[in-house]
Amino acid sequence: MFDAIETPRLILDKSRLEANTKRFLKRADDMNIALRPHLKTSKSVDVAKIATAGRLSGITVSTLKEAEHFAAHGFDNILLAAGITPNKFARVKAIMEQHKIDLIVITDSIDVANAAARFSEAENCALQVLIEIDCGEHRGGLSVDNPDLLEIARTLDQSPVAKFKGVITHAGHSYGTEDEDEVRAIAAHERQSVLDSAQKLSAINIACDIISVGSTPTFLLAETFEGLTEVRCGVFVFFDLAQTSRGICSLDDIAVSVLATVIGHSRLGKALIIDAGAFALSKDASANAFLPDAGYGYACDPVTMQRLGTLSVNGVHQEHGTIHIDDEAWYQRLPVGSQVRIMPNHACPTAAAHDTYLVIENGAIIAEWPRVNGW
Amino acid sequence: MFDAIETPRLILDKSRLEANTKRFLKRADDMNIALRPHLKTSKSVDVAKIATAGRLSGITVSTLKEAEHFAAHGFDNILLAAGITPNKFARVKAIMEQHKIDLIVITDSIDVANAAARFSEAENCALQVLIEIDCGEHRGGLSVDNPDLLEIARTLDQSPVAKFKGVITHAGHSYGTEDEDEVRAIAAHERQSVLDSAQKLSAINIACDIISVGSTPTFLLAETFEGLTEVRCGVFVFFDLAQTSRGICSLDDIAVSVLATVIGHSRLGKALIIDAGAFALSKDASANAFLPDAGYGYACDPVTMQRLGTLSVNGVHQEHGTIHIDDEAWYQRLPVGSQVRIMPNHACPTAAAHDTYLVIENGAIIAEWPRVNGW
Repeated sequence: MFDAIETPRLILDKSRLEANTKRFLKRADDMNIALRPHLKTSKSVDVAKIATAGRLSGITVSTLKEAEHFAAHGFDNILLAAGITPNKFARVKAIMEQHKIDLIVITDSIDVANAAARFSEAENCALQVLIEIDCGEHRGGLSVDNPDLLEIARTLDQSPVAKFKGVITHAGHSYGTEDEDEVRAIAAHERQSVLDSAQKLSAINIACDIISVGSTPTFLLAETFEGLTEVRCGVFVFFDLAQTSRGICSLDDIAVSVLATVIGHSRLGKALIIDAGAFALSKDASANAFLPDAGYGYACDPVTMQRLGTLSVNGVHQEHGTIHIDDEAWYQRLPVGSQVRIMPNHACPTAAAHDTYLVIENGAIIAEWPRVNGW
Repeated sequence: MFDAIETPRLILDKSRLEANTKRFLKRADDMNIALRPHLKTSKSVDVAKIATAGRLSGITVSTLKEAEHFAAHGFDNILLAAGITPNKFARVKAIMEQHKIDLIVITDSIDVANAAARFSEAENCALQVLIEIDCGEHRGGLSVDNPDLLEIARTLDQSPVAKFKGVITHAGHSYGTEDEDEVRAIAAHERQSVLDSAQKLSAINIACDIISVGSTPTFLLAETFEGLTEVRCGVFVFFDLAQTSRGICSLDDIAVSVLATVIGHSRLGKALIIDAGAFALSKDASANAFLPDAGYGYACDPVTMQRLGTLSVNGVHQEHGTIHIDDEAWYQRLPVGSQVRIMPNHACPTAAAHDTYLVIENGAIIAEWPRVNGW
């Protein structure tokens, strides 16, 4: 199937993508909650259409470049889930006005809220802002009892132009455990943190249109989403060894991989050398906490995607990957020039180095889909 | 200088680039050896012109996409320093013929040598091939006493069309030590490994036009390059904390950095959150072996590039960087919306996420230079 393909090359299995999406959309339906998929993983309009079941609305992005790209392709409601700053307001305005869409931004800063109100009034452009709540990860966000919560909401609510939209949180620390009960407790706390925030705002007569939570582990294990308006998660479209390591998917669900060629046999190092290294695979080792042999990805048969024995990519240089072998028979089985496919440790950074996906279905290459990298 | 610049953004200090290049070209002159700079770090024609002192010849690349790009911009002698495989021969031929340049490839495989000879004859296109020698890193290459060395050279030498060009090695393991005497020993062994290989080939009447070594540490500390035709190294144009950590450069030599904006103050996490994360900085931690506080880069004043106290980027998510603080005064000093510049842990992967360099000189932005990423 891949004989004529130059490597390294990012491969996407469309059937797996569709099955993963179906599973997550069904879970959202079953739980009676809207899913706003995070497209930072795929950065692809083609994937976004599948991930939203064709709705072209209600998506999450990580950069303004993604927002621009999806807006230009018809997506009309986009949430940028990283704190906005005033140096980006002009671009937010341009995207909203050029494409006539809703682009919702987030902050946890009074200074930014004040600047957003001033900008909205001066430019007659209604910035739409959520307040970020810290539910335990300690990355972005205010604690529920931080008085800035009320002050930011008041600033935006009282602006004649800017719009206060609600509250948002992300339980990124749910990746820190394998224990399902712990994840359930984190999910409950994630939900409670935004419900409590909305309650405090309701007490001063400020309503939240959006009450948003999300991470893949908490989405799957939460017992209820009652009171919330939406959940966000993203990596589910592709999955990876990091998700497998946490029991979230099986190896057979992983939809994205890197096709590579064996470029040498290191007799002294007892290794196969491939042309997918730190750039084509990334140096991310998120899976390794719970799957120590993940390395920089599992080495698989290029067609069946079955793992080759216990082979992993154990080391990477910029354009070289090193696969240690315990048996010299691998030199015969994988001669120089033969191909392998690498199941990624963490799909998001692996995909990020590539401009396009080579899309396969039923054992054939069917399409090439672009990605929107950078900022 | 950067107030109007959207972040994250890759910044290149042209004066530092020129000073670094001058130092390395002088060392090559002093040692009477040709420098074939490796452009995998910069992937930039503008940098390549400086790194070759305007020669537009004799460069090293890591991908065929780089080779294509530099060939299209007038560079006429290019070495691809990662093992070639038959699925890439057609592209090698296209580059050589379209641009009428020398594109030299490497292998350590008899199968590839045979295929190269067949391809050269069938296509009437002289592939130019070096044999890769393993001088101790155990990545690519044959040991000097591997009989395949002679067989590969004979195969290519006897081909009526393909050209055997010589031998090449890379002492990547020179990065594994801080001890200058150890680096000197590695440099001596690096040189000896290719001299011995060339000697064995000379004994069967096969000459090496090219005898090539190179790594930044061994280039700087080698006592002699006698008998060699060239040295290769690359990161010297930019430097980074990984090089500082090994005593190769000072912080004031680091020419590349990432401009970022403070997007939040995590009161619960006691941290500044910036908009440069795993994608804008990379997750490479090469410096940390010898510089444990390098984190994912030092946080610096955006104008002076002086480090801000002892601040580093301690954690990264896809688009978020976390800078832990030991004193809440940093919240006043670096309000949300203010800028910092991050001195990279490892320049090559940091630069790789960015499409262009914003070039500065004498405190002003003077240009934007493109990069050629991907494959």
